[in-house]
Amino acid sequence: MAKYIYAFDEGQKSMKDLLGGKGANLAEMKRLSLPVPDGFTITTEACIEYLKQGAKLSDTLMKQLYTELEAFSQRSQKSFSSDTELLLVSVRSGAKISMPGMMDTILNLGLNDENVKKLAVKTNDARFAFDCYRRLLQMFGEVVYGIPMASFDKYFNQYKKQQGYQNDADIPAEGLKDICEYYKAIYLEKVYKPFPQEPVKQLTEAIEAVFKSWDNERARIYRELNEIPHDIGTAVNIQEMVFGNSGEESGTGVAFTRNPVTGEAQLFGEYLLNAQGEDVVAGIRTPKDIDTLKGQMPTVYQQFVEVSQQLEMHYKDMQDIEFTIENGKLYILQTRSGKRTARAAIQIAVDLVEEGIITEEEALQRVDIKSIDQLLHPNFDEGALKQAVLVSDMGLPASPGATSGKIVFSAENAKFESEKGNKVILMRPETSPEDIEGMIASEAIVTTHGGMTSHAAVVARGMGKCCVTGCSNIEINVTDKIVNYPGGTLYEGDIVSVDGAKGDVYKGEIATIEAESSEAFETFMKWSASKARLDVRMNAETVPDIQAGYQFGAKGIGLVRTEHMFFAPERLVEMRRFILSDTHDQRITALNKIKTYQVVDFEKILELSGDRPTIIRLLDPPLHEFLPNSQEDKQAVANQLEVPINELEQLIENLNEVNPMLGHRGCRLAITYPELYLMQVEAIIESALRLKAQGIACQPEIMIPLVSTVAEFSILKTNINERIDRIQQEAKESIDYSIGTMIETPRACLIAGELARECDFMSFGTNDLTQLTFGFSRDDAGKFIGEYADKGILAKDPFQTLDIEGVGNLVKMATEQAKAVNPEIKIGVCGELGGDHKSILYFNKLNIDYVSCSPFRVPGALLSTAQCEVEVSHKYAK
Amino acid sequence: MAKYIYAFDEGQKSMKDLLGGKGANLAEMKRLSLPVPDGFTITTEACIEYLKQGAKLSDTLMKQLYTELEAFSQRSQKSFSSDTELLLVSVRSGAKISMPGMMDTILNLGLNDENVKKLAVKTNDARFAFDCYRRLLQMFGEVVYGIPMASFDKYFNQYKKQQGYQNDADIPAEGLKDICEYYKAIYLEKVYKPFPQEPVKQLTEAIEAVFKSWDNERARIYRELNEIPHDIGTAVNIQEMVFGNSGEESGTGVAFTRNPVTGEAQLFGEYLLNAQGEDVVAGIRTPKDIDTLKGQMPTVYQQFVEVSQQLEMHYKDMQDIEFTIENGKLYILQTRSGKRTARAAIQIAVDLVEEGIITEEEALQRVDIKSIDQLLHPNFDEGALKQAVLVSDMGLPASPGATSGKIVFSAENAKFESEKGNKVILMRPETSPEDIEGMIASEAIVTTHGGMTSHAAVVARGMGKCCVTGCSNIEINVTDKIVNYPGGTLYEGDIVSVDGAKGDVYKGEIATIEAESSEAFETFMKWSASKARLDVRMNAETVPDIQAGYQFGAKGIGLVRTEHMFFAPERLVEMRRFILSDTHDQRITALNKIKTYQVVDFEKILELSGDRPTIIRLLDPPLHEFLPNSQEDKQAVANQLEVPINELEQLIENLNEVNPMLGHRGCRLAITYPELYLMQVEAIIESALRLKAQGIACQPEIMIPLVSTVAEFSILKTNINERIDRIQQEAKESIDYSIGTMIETPRACLIAGELARECDFMSFGTNDLTQLTFGFSRDDAGKFIGEYADKGILAKDPFQTLDIEGVGNLVKMATEQAKAVNPEIKIGVCGELGGDHKSILYFNKLNIDYVSCSPFRVPGALLSTAQCEVEVSHKYAK
Repeated sequence: MAKYIYAFDEGQKSMKDLLGGKGANLAEMKRLSLPVPDGFTITTEACIEYLKQGAKLSDTLMKQLYTELEAFSQRSQKSFSSDTELLLVSVRSGAKISMPGMMDTILNLGLNDENVKKLAVKTNDARFAFDCYRRLLQMFGEVVYGIPMASFDKYFNQYKKQQGYQNDADIPAEGLKDICEYYKAIYLEKVYKPFPQEPVKQLTEAIEAVFKSWDNERARIYRELNEIPHDIGTAVNIQEMVFGNSGEESGTGVAFTRNPVTGEAQLFGEYLLNAQGEDVVAGIRTPKDIDTLKGQMPTVYQQFVEVSQQLEMHYKDMQDIEFTIENGKLYILQTRSGKRTARAAIQIAVDLVEEGIITEEEALQRVDIKSIDQLLHPNFDEGALKQAVLVSDMGLPASPGATSGKIVFSAENAKFESEKGNKVILMRPETSPEDIEGMIASEAIVTTHGGMTSHAAVVARGMGKCCVTGCSNIEINVTDKIVNYPGGTLYEGDIVSVDGAKGDVYKGEIATIEAESSEAFETFMKWSASKARLDVRMNAETVPDIQAGYQFGAKGIGLVRTEHMFFAPERLVEMRRFILSDTHDQRITALNKIKTYQVVDFEKILELSGDRPTIIRLLDPPLHEFLPNSQEDKQAVANQLEVPINELEQLIENLNEVNPMLGHRGCRLAITYPELYLMQVEAIIESALRLKAQGIACQPEIMIPLVSTVAEFSILKTNINERIDRIQQEAKESIDYSIGTMIETPRACLIAGELARECDFMSFGTNDLTQLTFGFSRDDAGKFIGEYADKGILAKDPFQTLDIEGVGNLVKMATEQAKAVNPEIKIGVCGELGGDHKSILYFNKLNIDYVSCSPFRVPGALLSTAQCEVEVSHKYAK
Repeated sequence: MAKYIYAFDEGQKSMKDLLGGKGANLAEMKRLSLPVPDGFTITTEACIEYLKQGAKLSDTLMKQLYTELEAFSQRSQKSFSSDTELLLVSVRSGAKISMPGMMDTILNLGLNDENVKKLAVKTNDARFAFDCYRRLLQMFGEVVYGIPMASFDKYFNQYKKQQGYQNDADIPAEGLKDICEYYKAIYLEKVYKPFPQEPVKQLTEAIEAVFKSWDNERARIYRELNEIPHDIGTAVNIQEMVFGNSGEESGTGVAFTRNPVTGEAQLFGEYLLNAQGEDVVAGIRTPKDIDTLKGQMPTVYQQFVEVSQQLEMHYKDMQDIEFTIENGKLYILQTRSGKRTARAAIQIAVDLVEEGIITEEEALQRVDIKSIDQLLHPNFDEGALKQAVLVSDMGLPASPGATSGKIVFSAENAKFESEKGNKVILMRPETSPEDIEGMIASEAIVTTHGGMTSHAAVVARGMGKCCVTGCSNIEINVTDKIVNYPGGTLYEGDIVSVDGAKGDVYKGEIATIEAESSEAFETFMKWSASKARLDVRMNAETVPDIQAGYQFGAKGIGLVRTEHMFFAPERLVEMRRFILSDTHDQRITALNKIKTYQVVDFEKILELSGDRPTIIRLLDPPLHEFLPNSQEDKQAVANQLEVPINELEQLIENLNEVNPMLGHRGCRLAITYPELYLMQVEAIIESALRLKAQGIACQPEIMIPLVSTVAEFSILKTNINERIDRIQQEAKESIDYSIGTMIETPRACLIAGELARECDFMSFGTNDLTQLTFGFSRDDAGKFIGEYADKGILAKDPFQTLDIEGVGNLVKMATEQAKAVNPEIKIGVCGELGGDHKSILYFNKLNIDYVSCSPFRVPGALLSTAQCEVEVSHKYAK
């Protein structure tokens, strides 16, 4: 027969699966002989069984409950029916992982019309007794019978107002008694049944309420989102009451063993005297700082300090402790690892290592990877935020940061305003490569279309620039230069504030708090880097980004996107000249001009990298992306290049593609225009030669994108090698370079073994690979991906977290084949997923050498890969 | 030491690899004791060796050559230097597979200034001797030294004109002698060296010329195109000359043992008296019908008839025989399987079976699958074609047929003109689903963009309608309604003729010859069907197409594309109403109207299929395909639906997609608009119920397109089943239906095992699967795919012939996984590749149940799959 009930002194902290987090910790504290009120825990298995049996408490469980209540009475010498030694209990849920939506707490259970009187007599405090009773009535009504809390509060406030009482404490015993009577009437009115007077009935109904709350919708959704299994159930903790509301020698409070905001190693907490349970958080009375307790109750304070130190040492982590003082005696009601800010998490982790409490490996596991982002970007001041008017709260948190500026609707205007010294926010339905310079000039980018991996999102993250995409509840009208949002209209020049970490846009300017680095952060990142198996590189091409990435610990550059270098006006005109050329000679002339710029670009990048590897991807986008869209721009370009407008229009028409993502781009461009890649290769090698002349060694790695056949790669590689040989012979110098490919098409994965014979390295471009594997365009998927998440079709956005079954499987197959054929080949991931923890967990298991992500995601990625290794080595150690 | 030379009587027909086709057949005829002039063959291995050694005749070969010449002299009692028994030979190439571009023939080799005189004396015919010499000089000059034939012809014609001779035969011996002198001067002038007088030198130079011709560009390209390996080499045949030009008792000719055009079992051929070699084909004199020989030389004729019958029986196939008569004696110079039309191929194959010469299995292997297409479509009259003016010969043969009509530039105009009774040809840069009705109304479709699997091509093939795509050398200007082609301009209403089998477009009307079915064809197709392992279904949705498909032997419908049913005006308006709806009720109202049409559609289709399975694919294209494009159309739709034009424009803008191929389409539509599929499912089941009420059983199979996750399929399947249950309960009747999915995304292949648990059937949509695997858009790939073919990156267009390494691998993995999990599942292929022979060869090896293709490709597919089986069973038999 299953044991469904454990007395606190039968359990311990390792029994979380069975007793839940709260129950296991209460048992543990009991084992440590801490002052914990006695009680027992009904197991998670009992919950599962209850739900499986169609919401029925089994005879077995009821029998065990009666036996345990008997034993409990014996131990405490109290009972639900005793006149003098009255047993009152609290009932609390406690799953293995705490989650919102679960039933929380019922206090003072056991009180009824009889017992409240006994309590009044025993404590000689009728006011206290009826205060406890009305609290029970209210909590039980809400939690067990679903009577809205507001029904009780409304009456309570009316009564206070009628009688002219200022504070709750002003209400005398008689008043509270009346309130209890009225509360009981609410039961009859709302649920057509009276408050159960029988304590055991109260208890069993409360237990059932906890069990049922495991299956309520909010809890289910939370579990879905957080990938918590549905079949682990919750435990129920039944504990003897202690009363923080039994006078001025009593109180209740919450404390953290260290500062949860800064991580400072100093007790941090609040308490209220003569208060119970939720009073501290309800905000009716202002709680006092825990330090004050030192003066008010020095012995209790000292005892609490000792307990909290003991608990932190025992659990080896910062604790969040609930306590109650009853008539000068301290009781501990709960302890758990305390929630903390990213900054505090790192500070505490580093401090705990330095205090010798935990190892570096343990410290690495203490920090949530997602929180690292917070550390690297400014945030809005929480106070100021509360006052702010929302424009949209439906956007996607595409790139973190918090900033304000004037609205502009075009890249040109963004540049224009920013050159005048104005901070601007670029708002567009979506962005395209043509907008790059405008994006650089802006503080933040806001779009209505597109998802987390739309052009705006990817580019902004690359730049470490704040960005919110997919604000589907607003309309950005570029023609009329207005933004319609649910609360009104915004015009060009209006100020908005953008929170890229949350995906929110606000009206007006909001004060920000700057990100700051700390010694602890640097120490922590050093530990991460030392434990990581996978190298972490960055996707970057601008000087500030590259500097940032190296500062954050990147081991090289995994992706230089050269197309971003073609949009400066003096280059764009040459690129357009190239596209419009009729002859090979004309094309070469245009390309040679671009080359002079590219040499400078690459020299800067390669110099910053020095002997760290730098993967330069040759031109990837289709040519039409370099041509103008609007009639105005077309005319301007026609004038500038001195071609008839209709010829230009015809060319644009000819280059237009139905599905540009699947079009004439990547290496396909170089098959038709070999000179394009050769120009870039010349620029790379010439810049490397210049650096060599200055005594700077560098390691350019040339990457050919969008390969789907071995022949594409071999042909281009042969061309490139021939050209480089010629340059090196002319220069009588040689450069250490390599040539590899980006694996972005499913076919490239399927023939990876053959490709690997030809390549020095391979880099998975997970964005395109995911698009092609699913047949989703990331530019268009916004229209249905929300529905897909809602209906549970996609648990995770596959552009943000690796789709293991599909894309992951292709990556695995390709990696295995490639390494089997060419064990020397370097394999990396340079798509968006290169910075995602869940994805890194998977990549770390494969024979992959590095991941590459936006500079600002480098620290998170480093920590991810370090955590993988720490987990792995722990597993082997066991 | 390798044996490089075989005398004719050392070989036999099985030695084609070594002796080439011609050499093996000459040896074989020798074995059969037929009157073949003696000679020997230099092996293909000698050719390979020669090329490998850097174009050098090895000592070994030269030694063997001298030895063989010696033996040959012994056998023939003739030599290159004998005064009376002069040896003259022909030299001909002969690879295993005959191919254009190879050196062909040198006759009369061995003649020189001395020998020509001996020949004159010996034959007592100086004219004959110098005629032979001038032919040698000309052929040798062209073939061995590359002197243009025209240089010789020019002088020859000048001479004739100067001297006033009408015919070649009028030139006397002295004249031919002068010509020979002049020809020798041409050598000095053109190649600075004299004609080699030494016969063995002539011979070795001729042999080298044959060997070298194996590697010339034309031959290489031909081999690439026809997938003939480059390393099999060619043999050289050296044969004693017989002279068809030695008087009126001599002659030369070519004959087929059966009629190569109709297949009729009757000798068919031509000959010329007193002529040599190429005279028959050169067209200077008109050859005579072989029948005439019966009267002229009855004995020779009778002998030839016997020889030809013997050869046909021996080779068990229709033979193409070259013969020469020298002074009344018959010589056979060559025999080979004769080329024939598709019609003849089938007639001959069937006749040979009926004559007991070959088996049905052999007959099935005798017909080229590609030629089947010819049989099902009309063709232009060959004579008329010679006069016609080309508009474009650069188009792709997208869908066979030959037809003429007036040019129209829009679908509307196509309908308008066709309703007036005019035949029209729709010419557009490309087509879209909106053009469907215009395409139906047209005789043929011509586009400038797009490839063999562009929208125009796929739809036209589905309709069995003539179509040429990718005419890149013409410009179709829809705005100005003109077609610019290299020779001028065409206007709306001008007549053009379109050859869909060749990809050509002509100016004006050209007479056609109708396709006709025959008894032999039907017999042949019956044999095919009985041998096929794979079922062949059709992709069709119109009544004439379905009827055609069933007549051609389809076993069911593999793909009904329901989107084609939404474009008739009365439906399109409801579809647009559906898209523009604000509320669920409005959507349902619009859909219910469409349903009334769909019920009728499906009833017709299901009735035609009867108990054969019919897969109906639920709606696939994105919604924006149903909305108007031009400003005019937009206004018309706005008026019709009574919505403000700007609202309509906003909607179109919102629905617009960057990559529609990867957008909100297929099952994704049904996730967001479940009622869309449910309407179609209701229509399917209701139509099946109507048929059942009439006593007609049918087997609808419901196919959900573009699935990439199991959840998509399960959710939709559950919805569909629920809806069908409800309808069946209401009707108190049940329908035998199944639900399956189309496998079009790489991800669907990767999770095929999981999907198979849920599906009754799976059908590979190879078009989309190929697009996604390569990352090629078939609408856009036209821009680079030509270059890819030229550079050998893609040997075959993967949209026409399965890419085995990539797409084929996915299909294989998916099929294996699916059948392992669910052995009952039916698996098919319904993309374009379902009708391609090479692809069927691969599919036939997998555990696939059926292929499905356009009705007009059904016979070819049936033959393909039959041929696979015949090959397989032969393999096992061996």
